[in-house]
Amino acid sequence: MEITTQGIQVAAILISALALGVAAWLYTWVKSQPSSNPRIAEIGEYIRSGANTFLRREYSVLARFTLVVALLILVFLPRPIWHGDMARNIWMAVSYVFGTILSALAGKIGIQVATIANVKAAEAARKGIEPSFMTAFRGGAVMGLAVVGTSLLGVAAVLMLTGDATSVLGFSFGASSLALFAKAGGGIFTKTADISADLVGKVEMGMEEDDARNPAVIADNVGDNVGDVAGMGADLFDSNVASTAAALVMATSFAGAASDAAVKMVFAYAGVGLLSSIIGIATARMGKDGDPSKALNSSTYVTTAVFGVLTAAATALLGMEWRIWGATAIGLLVGTIIGITSDYFTNDAKPPVREVAKASGSGPAFTILAGFSYALLSSLPALIGIALSAMLAYNICAPLGEGYGMFGISMAALGMLSIVGMVISNDAYGPIVDNSRGLAEMGGLGEKVIRVADELDSAGNTVKAVTKGFSIGAAGLTVIALLGAFRSEVNTAAAELGLVEAGTSLLSTFDIMDPTVFFGLIVGVAVPAVFSAMLMLGVDRNAQRMVEEIHRQFRTIAGLRDGKPGVKPDYDKCIDIATTGALRELIPAGVVAILSTVAVGMIGGAPAIGGFLTGNITSGLLLALLMSNAGGLWDNAKKYVEAGNHGGKGSPAHKAAVVGDTVGDPFKDTAGPSINTQITVVSLVASLLAVIFIQFSIF
Amino acid sequence: MEITTQGIQVAAILISALALGVAAWLYTWVKSQPSSNPRIAEIGEYIRSGANTFLRREYSVLARFTLVVALLILVFLPRPIWHGDMARNIWMAVSYVFGTILSALAGKIGIQVATIANVKAAEAARKGIEPSFMTAFRGGAVMGLAVVGTSLLGVAAVLMLTGDATSVLGFSFGASSLALFAKAGGGIFTKTADISADLVGKVEMGMEEDDARNPAVIADNVGDNVGDVAGMGADLFDSNVASTAAALVMATSFAGAASDAAVKMVFAYAGVGLLSSIIGIATARMGKDGDPSKALNSSTYVTTAVFGVLTAAATALLGMEWRIWGATAIGLLVGTIIGITSDYFTNDAKPPVREVAKASGSGPAFTILAGFSYALLSSLPALIGIALSAMLAYNICAPLGEGYGMFGISMAALGMLSIVGMVISNDAYGPIVDNSRGLAEMGGLGEKVIRVADELDSAGNTVKAVTKGFSIGAAGLTVIALLGAFRSEVNTAAAELGLVEAGTSLLSTFDIMDPTVFFGLIVGVAVPAVFSAMLMLGVDRNAQRMVEEIHRQFRTIAGLRDGKPGVKPDYDKCIDIATTGALRELIPAGVVAILSTVAVGMIGGAPAIGGFLTGNITSGLLLALLMSNAGGLWDNAKKYVEAGNHGGKGSPAHKAAVVGDTVGDPFKDTAGPSINTQITVVSLVASLLAVIFIQFSIF
Repeated sequence: MEITTQGIQVAAILISALALGVAAWLYTWVKSQPSSNPRIAEIGEYIRSGANTFLRREYSVLARFTLVVALLILVFLPRPIWHGDMARNIWMAVSYVFGTILSALAGKIGIQVATIANVKAAEAARKGIEPSFMTAFRGGAVMGLAVVGTSLLGVAAVLMLTGDATSVLGFSFGASSLALFAKAGGGIFTKTADISADLVGKVEMGMEEDDARNPAVIADNVGDNVGDVAGMGADLFDSNVASTAAALVMATSFAGAASDAAVKMVFAYAGVGLLSSIIGIATARMGKDGDPSKALNSSTYVTTAVFGVLTAAATALLGMEWRIWGATAIGLLVGTIIGITSDYFTNDAKPPVREVAKASGSGPAFTILAGFSYALLSSLPALIGIALSAMLAYNICAPLGEGYGMFGISMAALGMLSIVGMVISNDAYGPIVDNSRGLAEMGGLGEKVIRVADELDSAGNTVKAVTKGFSIGAAGLTVIALLGAFRSEVNTAAAELGLVEAGTSLLSTFDIMDPTVFFGLIVGVAVPAVFSAMLMLGVDRNAQRMVEEIHRQFRTIAGLRDGKPGVKPDYDKCIDIATTGALRELIPAGVVAILSTVAVGMIGGAPAIGGFLTGNITSGLLLALLMSNAGGLWDNAKKYVEAGNHGGKGSPAHKAAVVGDTVGDPFKDTAGPSINTQITVVSLVASLLAVIFIQFSIF
Repeated sequence: MEITTQGIQVAAILISALALGVAAWLYTWVKSQPSSNPRIAEIGEYIRSGANTFLRREYSVLARFTLVVALLILVFLPRPIWHGDMARNIWMAVSYVFGTILSALAGKIGIQVATIANVKAAEAARKGIEPSFMTAFRGGAVMGLAVVGTSLLGVAAVLMLTGDATSVLGFSFGASSLALFAKAGGGIFTKTADISADLVGKVEMGMEEDDARNPAVIADNVGDNVGDVAGMGADLFDSNVASTAAALVMATSFAGAASDAAVKMVFAYAGVGLLSSIIGIATARMGKDGDPSKALNSSTYVTTAVFGVLTAAATALLGMEWRIWGATAIGLLVGTIIGITSDYFTNDAKPPVREVAKASGSGPAFTILAGFSYALLSSLPALIGIALSAMLAYNICAPLGEGYGMFGISMAALGMLSIVGMVISNDAYGPIVDNSRGLAEMGGLGEKVIRVADELDSAGNTVKAVTKGFSIGAAGLTVIALLGAFRSEVNTAAAELGLVEAGTSLLSTFDIMDPTVFFGLIVGVAVPAVFSAMLMLGVDRNAQRMVEEIHRQFRTIAGLRDGKPGVKPDYDKCIDIATTGALRELIPAGVVAILSTVAVGMIGGAPAIGGFLTGNITSGLLLALLMSNAGGLWDNAKKYVEAGNHGGKGSPAHKAAVVGDTVGDPFKDTAGPSINTQITVVSLVASLLAVIFIQFSIF
């Protein structure tokens, strides 16, 4: 069957439109679910308005940042205007802004549906676990399909309009830079609120989770939405775009027909991936056993299987290279393996969580030591998986010709992210059920309903570990591919500027033993560490402020502590503290990451940047895996103790486990996942500024 | 002035002999100090016999390990016997065994003097701070001079006897492999005892540090000796030998006269470094203000200045290259800078410690979060320092000819370690005064004496941070140099085996974008993480066993808790648990590190190993800095709270700070410093097995 590259792009756009259509239908379905309880509606409204206020304030800060960057792009990128043509710079700036807008939109859509689905799922829990599950899951699916639909649509549109893969990098940078701040800001907000609410409410006053007397309880629920829904959506939007962009840069660097064929494969596999997610979502049902984890996981497996079959069919029908298909399949396979090993280290049925729970009996220091150690160990299988998949994908595709090895790695990343629509659906499900549990508690829906909500919530936690494994693995592969893209960009720019003779390359290797590469490498190692430290210190400072405020409210508002009817805490004040603090803390860390890239590039030029990106990947992957898994492990160790083990709730082991959980919160929900975005942003900045570095660096 | 290379080597041996002579004199001096208190003598005897028992059992395990490795070397190294000549393999095996013996001897000498000096320093504290300081300092100096004297002597002797730098690598591997296990074993022992003693004694029962009723108190004091004295001595012996070995491998790879000149420079600077340490130690006196920290630091600065002047003089007199001198000076300078920044993050007069102490007011989770974040930040200046010194040393020396850039880096490492005699003296001072404080407490020497001992102890902690910065920085540079040594080895072996045409090299670059290099890189990142996790889990498990035993003793020994006269705990049982546990846990982690190197080499050959070593350096440096500084920071934050801030002893902030300190203990005294040795061992294994990898690897 003969279809043109253009045809495939149009097909990809149509599949994106289908995804958006399905998302719209699901949104309407969620909205049409009954809700009658006025108390829940009232609290739901608090949450929704808090989340929207935060998003509005965050976006208005980021709009200014975007404007500045867009102007810089206009002047300097892809080539300084005194070298290049103005039209290309304008396209670049427009693509960048388009990327930020779509990324922001993904977050906004997520908040929109999540703050409805939470209320509906709480209501539905009165009827049983199945309707509640379906409501939450479909709410998450709206987000999943919207994110992937808009990202594929955006990439295809930018490439069709500009015909220039560098503009796709610009689009991707727009998506990433927004994601960086959205993830950081949301992450700081959510953990500020969560930690403070737990610390004062649970630890000091012995209240239950989601007690309406707790002044931070609404902020905590808002946090689930702005951090875990909007932030996560922007993050995965970014990963998805970046992996596609990296593949496209390499695809378009091939000559003539080979380039067309490669672009075709990128869109074919990306489109089929989205189609598989639509099918996986459409067929998701809870089994008769009523086990929500199984339902979530089985729809992931359905998606994976459908993807495998459909891509094989597409490869055969469209006469595409089986070797490329192989690379894609390896990516997906390794992603699954990483997910399963993350699950091993964070699942409460497995030894690590149980050992940490047991160690908690000796005090919080042992909780921390054991959990931290297991999390260090957990990095091993994931790193081996990433290393092997990169090597295999490269070697499978290398025989196709020069440049195909690297293209193979980018396709493995694409393969790992192919089912990202499903991944996001599952991920967004988590905060929705977490919220609905809160609403059930605060709305006084009774023990039985809360138990249903609890069960759904715990499934969300388990599935999260698997999906995080996917996204870290994919970020790793994407950044390797972006390293290849960076080299392509350097060589293209050098040729265009006449810095090298025709037919030769400026940069053929990044030799570790080149001291400039090594310099970049070692400095690059520090960046994810500094970045995550700044975010966590932000949470720490912010939470201290909020704890003071909660204490103040309990001290000054008469009757609050005893739950006197009619007495309400000042929820808004807590939301405001979290918002203001998050906005204050989110910019510096991101700016440090971007400026350090610029500094290294200006000092050591392209070779130093090659090392710098490598250093970033190595320490970024290590820290992201460490922090995400430590957080998940501590969370579940606490839950395991709360389930009645080692003394259960209120025991010394429980107090120790709570300390672990509190430490783990910013690990897994602020710093860990933000590192993904940070390394992607740094890679994109490097590729975009390649032309500046090779012209103006000191060494 | 014309002196032959042989002449310089003889001079280096004479300086080593001088150092050993001074050490012997200082040992006699320490031994001649008065001791009269029978109670202290009795407890001192407990500690000494416990430490010796551990050392004997540890060495008997390691002797078997050494024997196996020596046999393997005999068959395979430096070339498999069916390729090479038998005599060279015998020399290699002998050098290896010689390295393990000297390393073991360094540990033994340390224990020997430290377990005398502790008693003498406790006694001397009755007369005042000055005599006690001098006793402890000179005890430490015995260790410092012995370690550096034997290491320089060993390297010079091996090179003179065998005339083969590869045999020096074998000697270095012997030193490192013993250090790996000695550091790990001692580290597990000491923290098992320390944590358990604190947890039950201080936290549960509210006893003071070093309360004689605590069954683990002797084990704790034994631990200071076997971990911080013997382990640390073996570790720095190893770093010192490895940096010299790396420089010698590169020096001998030059052709003809250049090789001689380079070897001359290595021994000249190493010899002068040792001479500077002797002068620094001989002139060390406590000032009139009686400030022990100042005395320790000022003798370090004296050594540094003497080194700068003497090496400049030697360079001028012997007509050596000023560029090489420049590289050496840069190493020392950057080492000092790293030391100063480590001090910033761990000194209780500076913001990080104070912020962590303040955060402790909100609970242990905040202690951990803030401390961990600052420790992540602390990696930045050190990493930049290492990166810059490597780049500068390379670029300064590169104009001298091919291979000189890398030689410059190895000389920078040598420069950083040049004052290691002084560093070890300061480091060994710490556990001696820590012990003497314990003896003063248990011997009932009264409040005033304990206060003196406390002051000396706290100076030891502060100085430790600085010396740790030095050793991590030096390990980083050494391992970079070893990467160069590895490449030299690969190319030499390939030429000898006829795998390449004459005049060409098998390996000219380690390209990050080569997927095999990349594979090694990512797997290499995991190794220090897994290694340190295994050690910490070892401590965790072991401490849980010991806590149970302490509880058992308090339960079953009547009158122990109330301190009924004549009732003694069973100290030996605790020492035995710590010993047995440490011996059980120390082998697996080290073996994993060595076997993973072999596995990667057999899979991906020399390119994968190039990546693997790089991955090891990046994550090893990050984790070592993170853990050492976090541990120091938490320790001092606790001390700061105990000094009466944020509620002082017994306050909630204090309880939280104690949790931080407990987590930090195995961070800074088990895992962190062991990583140094681990990355060195892995590098040496790689260099030695180069010939096997290039012949038998799969890819």
